[in-house]
Amino acid sequence: MKHHHEALTPPMGWNSWDCYGATVTEEEVKGNADYMAEHLKDYGWEYIVVDIQWSEPGAVSSAYRPFVPLEMDAYSRLIPAVNRFPSARNGKGFQSLASYVHQLGLKFGIHIMRGIPRQAVHQNTKILGTDVRARDIAKPNSICPWNTDMYGVDHTKDGARQYYDSLFQLYAEWGVDFVKVDDIADSKLYGIHVEEIKMIRRAIDNCGRPMVLSLSPGPAPLEYASLLEENANMWRMTDDFWDLWPLLYDMFDRCYKWSKNVGPGYWPDADMLPLGHIGIRSVDGGASDRYTRFTKDEQLTMMTLWSIFKSPLMFGGELRDNDDWTLSLITNEEVLDVHRNGVGARQVYRDLDKVVWTSYGDDHTIYVALFNLNDQRERVTVTFEQLGIGGDKVEMRDLWEKADLGLATDIIDFELPPHGTKFIQLTNVSVQYCQRVTKLNL
Amino acid sequence: MKHHHEALTPPMGWNSWDCYGATVTEEEVKGNADYMAEHLKDYGWEYIVVDIQWSEPGAVSSAYRPFVPLEMDAYSRLIPAVNRFPSARNGKGFQSLASYVHQLGLKFGIHIMRGIPRQAVHQNTKILGTDVRARDIAKPNSICPWNTDMYGVDHTKDGARQYYDSLFQLYAEWGVDFVKVDDIADSKLYGIHVEEIKMIRRAIDNCGRPMVLSLSPGPAPLEYASLLEENANMWRMTDDFWDLWPLLYDMFDRCYKWSKNVGPGYWPDADMLPLGHIGIRSVDGGASDRYTRFTKDEQLTMMTLWSIFKSPLMFGGELRDNDDWTLSLITNEEVLDVHRNGVGARQVYRDLDKVVWTSYGDDHTIYVALFNLNDQRERVTVTFEQLGIGGDKVEMRDLWEKADLGLATDIIDFELPPHGTKFIQLTNVSVQYCQRVTKLNL
Amino acid sequence: MKHHHEALTPPMGWNSWDCYGATVTEEEVKGNADYMAEHLKDYGWEYIVVDIQWSEPGAVSSAYRPFVPLEMDAYSRLIPAVNRFPSARNGKGFQSLASYVHQLGLKFGIHIMRGIPRQAVHQNTKILGTDVRARDIAKPNSICPWNTDMYGVDHTKDGARQYYDSLFQLYAEWGVDFVKVDDIADSKLYGIHVEEIKMIRRAIDNCGRPMVLSLSPGPAPLEYASLLEENANMWRMTDDFWDLWPLLYDMFDRCYKWSKNVGPGYWPDADMLPLGHIGIRSVDGGASDRYTRFTKDEQLTMMTLWSIFKSPLMFGGELRDNDDWTLSLITNEEVLDVHRNGVGARQVYRDLDKVVWTSYGDDHTIYVALFNLNDQRERVTVTFEQLGIGGDKVEMRDLWEKADLGLATDIIDFELPPHGTKFIQLTNVSVQYCQRVTKLNL
Amino acid sequence: MKHHHEALTPPMGWNSWDCYGATVTEEEVKGNADYMAEHLKDYGWEYIVVDIQWSEPGAVSSAYRPFVPLEMDAYSRLIPAVNRFPSARNGKGFQSLASYVHQLGLKFGIHIMRGIPRQAVHQNTKILGTDVRARDIAKPNSICPWNTDMYGVDHTKDGARQYYDSLFQLYAEWGVDFVKVDDIADSKLYGIHVEEIKMIRRAIDNCGRPMVLSLSPGPAPLEYASLLEENANMWRMTDDFWDLWPLLYDMFDRCYKWSKNVGPGYWPDADMLPLGHIGIRSVDGGASDRYTRFTKDEQLTMMTLWSIFKSPLMFGGELRDNDDWTLSLITNEEVLDVHRNGVGARQVYRDLDKVVWTSYGDDHTIYVALFNLNDQRERVTVTFEQLGIGGDKVEMRDLWEKADLGLATDIIDFELPPHGTKFIQLTNVSVQYCQRVTKLNL
Repeated sequence: MKHHHEALTPPMGWNSWDCYGATVTEEEVKGNADYMAEHLKDYGWEYIVVDIQWSEPGAVSSAYRPFVPLEMDAYSRLIPAVNRFPSARNGKGFQSLASYVHQLGLKFGIHIMRGIPRQAVHQNTKILGTDVRARDIAKPNSICPWNTDMYGVDHTKDGARQYYDSLFQLYAEWGVDFVKVDDIADSKLYGIHVEEIKMIRRAIDNCGRPMVLSLSPGPAPLEYASLLEENANMWRMTDDFWDLWPLLYDMFDRCYKWSKNVGPGYWPDADMLPLGHIGIRSVDGGASDRYTRFTKDEQLTMMTLWSIFKSPLMFGGELRDNDDWTLSLITNEEVLDVHRNGVGARQVYRDLDKVVWTSYGDDHTIYVALFNLNDQRERVTVTFEQLGIGGDKVEMRDLWEKADLGLATDIIDFELPPHGTKFIQLTNVSVQYCQRVTKLNL
Repeated sequence: MKHHHEALTPPMGWNSWDCYGATVTEEEVKGNADYMAEHLKDYGWEYIVVDIQWSEPGAVSSAYRPFVPLEMDAYSRLIPAVNRFPSARNGKGFQSLASYVHQLGLKFGIHIMRGIPRQAVHQNTKILGTDVRARDIAKPNSICPWNTDMYGVDHTKDGARQYYDSLFQLYAEWGVDFVKVDDIADSKLYGIHVEEIKMIRRAIDNCGRPMVLSLSPGPAPLEYASLLEENANMWRMTDDFWDLWPLLYDMFDRCYKWSKNVGPGYWPDADMLPLGHIGIRSVDGGASDRYTRFTKDEQLTMMTLWSIFKSPLMFGGELRDNDDWTLSLITNEEVLDVHRNGVGARQVYRDLDKVVWTSYGDDHTIYVALFNLNDQRERVTVTFEQLGIGGDKVEMRDLWEKADLGLATDIIDFELPPHGTKFIQLTNVSVQYCQRVTKLNL
Repeated sequence: MKHHHEALTPPMGWNSWDCYGATVTEEEVKGNADYMAEHLKDYGWEYIVVDIQWSEPGAVSSAYRPFVPLEMDAYSRLIPAVNRFPSARNGKGFQSLASYVHQLGLKFGIHIMRGIPRQAVHQNTKILGTDVRARDIAKPNSICPWNTDMYGVDHTKDGARQYYDSLFQLYAEWGVDFVKVDDIADSKLYGIHVEEIKMIRRAIDNCGRPMVLSLSPGPAPLEYASLLEENANMWRMTDDFWDLWPLLYDMFDRCYKWSKNVGPGYWPDADMLPLGHIGIRSVDGGASDRYTRFTKDEQLTMMTLWSIFKSPLMFGGELRDNDDWTLSLITNEEVLDVHRNGVGARQVYRDLDKVVWTSYGDDHTIYVALFNLNDQRERVTVTFEQLGIGGDKVEMRDLWEKADLGLATDIIDFELPPHGTKFIQLTNVSVQYCQRVTKLNL
Repeated sequence: MKHHHEALTPPMGWNSWDCYGATVTEEEVKGNADYMAEHLKDYGWEYIVVDIQWSEPGAVSSAYRPFVPLEMDAYSRLIPAVNRFPSARNGKGFQSLASYVHQLGLKFGIHIMRGIPRQAVHQNTKILGTDVRARDIAKPNSICPWNTDMYGVDHTKDGARQYYDSLFQLYAEWGVDFVKVDDIADSKLYGIHVEEIKMIRRAIDNCGRPMVLSLSPGPAPLEYASLLEENANMWRMTDDFWDLWPLLYDMFDRCYKWSKNVGPGYWPDADMLPLGHIGIRSVDGGASDRYTRFTKDEQLTMMTLWSIFKSPLMFGGELRDNDDWTLSLITNEEVLDVHRNGVGARQVYRDLDKVVWTSYGDDHTIYVALFNLNDQRERVTVTFEQLGIGGDKVEMRDLWEKADLGLATDIIDFELPPHGTKFIQLTNVSVQYCQRVTKLNL
């Protein structure tokens, strides 16, 4: 579908949530953009995303202050808090910040909550280009259970579509390239908000500027895989992901369940990478200011799973505080090549805590990711037969180590540390039985 | 428990909802009070209850207008809309109207919604006797799904109890005798609101004036029978009841399920009696201005079930438009005596659409209600053995007809019209095996 | 109701499950009966109950052997395995054992599973007094999920009632006084089996011998309180109870929820007392041969809750191995008097882990049970006002210690050990506001 | 995956259920095979499938006789009832019948129930090639809720896999090409039986003969799309489908939800086609012996949806009684070409009861199916933009009518009868934005 062309490979970028919660400032955004331009852009990283509550002048952490006033324009649309985003003065919104990001050769994204501000509804403010007011289009029984900013919008009401259209016109004027819409894919209270997803799809298609559409939070319901694919570019498979092993352990099942619904332009999303320096002004995930609590093996395991599965990659830490190890995790060209170009990713098998995934590259190449999810060292193996391949001159390469490992025959077999992984490339293979592969046939 | 003494028999009264929806006026309330004083008071009817949204100046029917302003005092407390209740001018609230009702020898009741006005929260108004404001005590994820007036109140917050206390102090000043609290016994979105029920119980106990506490809507969860009994005087067994046979048919099961949880001061509530002239400015129940759609047999069936079960009796029609038939239904002393004084009501058996209930009177008297819920005429019988009684000089009387029917031996046996009933008193019985009887042992 | 007269006070007895699982033998039953007659009968203990699978010759523990043959008569009725119950030879069933128990002045009970043996169905054996066979009345989709002995019986089939009648005729011939029917009150797979409960009620009423009817396992659904009361004498509020603190902790909520549904002849059941020597040939509850894992404080807490709530008391340990402490727990006349004669038990309040219950005795006497469910010592108090009493010469007595504690004024206040209790009697009280009390009014 | 190669296009065949329920005979199977060979084989129809209970000698309709004996070999494996399948004499099983079908150039399929016969378990018969017996591998809590033939098999038990292996060895010896396994994809009582699906996949892979694996009944859970694709060739999206409009109406949603999970070798299944003469000895679907109750428009609608979606096509009627109309429905080469060769089928939009689907053919060809699910005539349209195509010489052809309709520009627009369809081919299109297409990349 048309909108799939805005994200033919899984989006890669930085998001302010894991480090700054609801409080990020313009300077911090710019600083991370500068870093990305200098250190990451060449590896494919491109989006700089300002997460939740940029309209809240008094935000102090990741905990929302209920019922507080937000900055809003005359047409019921939230605008950046000027104390946090000085360039937004005089109704400029994010124009200047987006320009800054664009001049670095990067793209600019924002977070929004589904719906219309509650303060607009109780003040009954105008809706651009209509005779109706906020009270007329708000949906009475439609709140977010964890944030008090918005009411949902009732698609059956005159003016509802125009409100969403007016939002995305504004974002197009600002120069937004990526929108993460929250409280929409799994509302906790009401399930998935199908009609608002459709209104947002329509509004983007009409706004005159391409934008990637990302839906949160998860878990998005697999039952709605068709609808999600037809309206969005990425959607969360999980509730907020943090640097806790049980959440990472659990992601293997989620990826398995969604693995038949991944393809060019539609990307089930394993959520942001809580790597490096996080929790600076956030108290989510049960901790505050810290370097990621994941061990190095767990970090490799996460990066390997996200890469072979082709999840979007959104870095959550303060980029400027990256150490060499962290930087190395996100600048390995060979791993990122699998992320970008691999096709047909699937779980080959899972035997208790041993898991093997594979995907296809070009030219008689396949990728194999071995995982040991156990708390003990374990030997993890996979046979050529299980992989559906043959070949007597198959060459094996360790992608994280960038090291050739010699010829492989019939079986791949490694002893892995607890929570550890081995990410392998096999070349000169003949594919005998193949997993389906999904392609755009343009 | 102490509060049970405020309603040792099931409350009887009039409520404005079935005829006037959210729109009743002071004149209409007074008119119905006058009628009750003249025609019904001698039969035990005593409460005059103003139902929902008496703070909404622009209410036009039973359909709520979302997000509209309500009349409120300086302490976040809703007050009567003066255009509808002129005597409420100058902050008098319902004082004058309550006095009017009291002078007729009747009692005065009001409806409230659980929680604090959303407009108070978004304006952040004061809470009486505290340093906190509305925003501090509102519960973020706590709305009513069918009405936009209120947010719930968070019992963990300082000032929450004081807010409820301030409400009931005001109602005590007004002279309120009966409070129907809505969106609390079955919130549809969140289940039962236990903590707000407890705060309201405490506020009534502290307000210095006895008030009957009624909880809506239903179905209240039977799982919470203990909690309901310990905090309230009546609670709904059902969602809104209207003049539709399937709803009446269904009430038999509800009464059966709750029948072990009825006693002095705690009354599961089958909801208002949609009799006489209803729907005058209400569009609920799938119809508007009308005389009740129940047939006469269905009306007798309803009154019989409500009476033997000891449900509160709240008349829903415009009393002044009663015809003789309707008046006769609510002024039969013998039937009302069962309602007031019967004990140990239970379903003797249900065999498909044949249902028999019984309860005990004084002095070797029992009551038997036979029901035919079928669409055809049916013979309905019950034996003395099933009733747990003996006696060879048992006299039988038809309570609706006020007619002696002669001696009964061993079996009671009537052919009943479709949806019809026979309500019988047996005297000179010897009780052999008895249902439990619940008494206050003061 | 008539059947309530078979258990006007909560049944007290011994059950073989906690010590012997599915394997108890005739000698062991007799030994426990002898002990009860000598040591416990004077305190009101009277039932000796043989628990599950007395038809299974090869039972070795509490773990069932799936699909094994059972001993059965010519009419599809299970009979005792002769190798375990030698007196059952020659088709005598439990006659001799029941006589033995009766001669001791005690009563005899058995456990049965709902339904008809699967082996009867697959062999298509006869049903007594009918032309149908087992295959004709078995319900296709009706198994027990944790035991393979039986199929359910389809009440719509000719011969279904006769089968159940034939069972209870046999039990009446044997001299059975108490029947615990299993897989019926909460089937795990299908919920509660209403129609089989009704068939069993009818079969007991027709069998010519009074029998107490006990329904297992739990939790029986509170939604069916009316049905349970109308058909049974006791029913489980919980799944199997063992000597584990979390299960005991949890029982407080269960008792609270059911507390309005307790009365003469109908007793919500907190399950057997895992006291003394248990697990001899049982591996349930996560342990095997042991003395109860409950601390002494926990044992007192359990006995106090069961007593004031009026749960049936069924001792689970091998009686002959009781030590003095254990014996003292079940032979305290004052505590057992509350169990037998208290009325109107209710939870006065629960504040986190502090819980207070009360019930009424005769003659200006009330009982108060204070509980500390916390893992730390805690002060637990209750005021006269909370208890609804007055009096200035109120005397206080410790029931477990059998010690007078002097006068009490206005408040009762004790520091309790972790998981500990204080069980108090107050005399010379004036009851001011009273909980309902349920009585038979014969 | 390897097994996908057994069904690279959606299977087409005949199944005995819709016409003969559980009772089909060898002669009837042969008769339908003869008809298929003569009239249908050239159009791609190839499977002849004997549905449920071919081991039940006394089967009389589609209603199962509970607990009756079945024919079984010495190793706990069900075999054909000789009275119904005479060629099965002397332990020949389905060898002769399969040969007959093969000689006609067709393939032979059978239905089985998940599990092991209950009679094997209660007789404790042997398992081939093992020391264990039926009782050792049966799963205690695992029945089919609607048929009493089998118990489930416990994959954790020694001998469990060998039992399934022995079944498929037998079927391989018989010459079976297609197995429909029942009570496995949606058990009603336990959900999907994952472990038995895996044991069956393994058993087929090991049996030495390719077989298509079909899983019933539905709805299979979309949550398990990955597992189903990795183990089976087809699985039901729905419970049994019959000739009732609401079921057909409902299928549109099911196809939409599953449409992203269709590809070479894995086919969500809309169930059999209840066309022609059905219900001959079946009472399912609320009717008995009849010609299909679907109108001609509904029949076209069903065939169009099944074809564009690429559901397996299994004819349910007695083929020999087909009239010309019915035969024409299943022998339209152009429609069947879409079924066989179309790719990327998707719902373009649904607007209340107007639905449009599309899929891609080769060489600038696309297919468009317009549906009017309303009870009134309706105009149904779709634009080139919605289809993602362009072209100014696009030719339009009516596939059911086999008629050229001239050039199409920008929009396709037809007025359709109630429940009617138009199935269109467009050639000379340029695809601009494309739905994903799933291909085997061998």
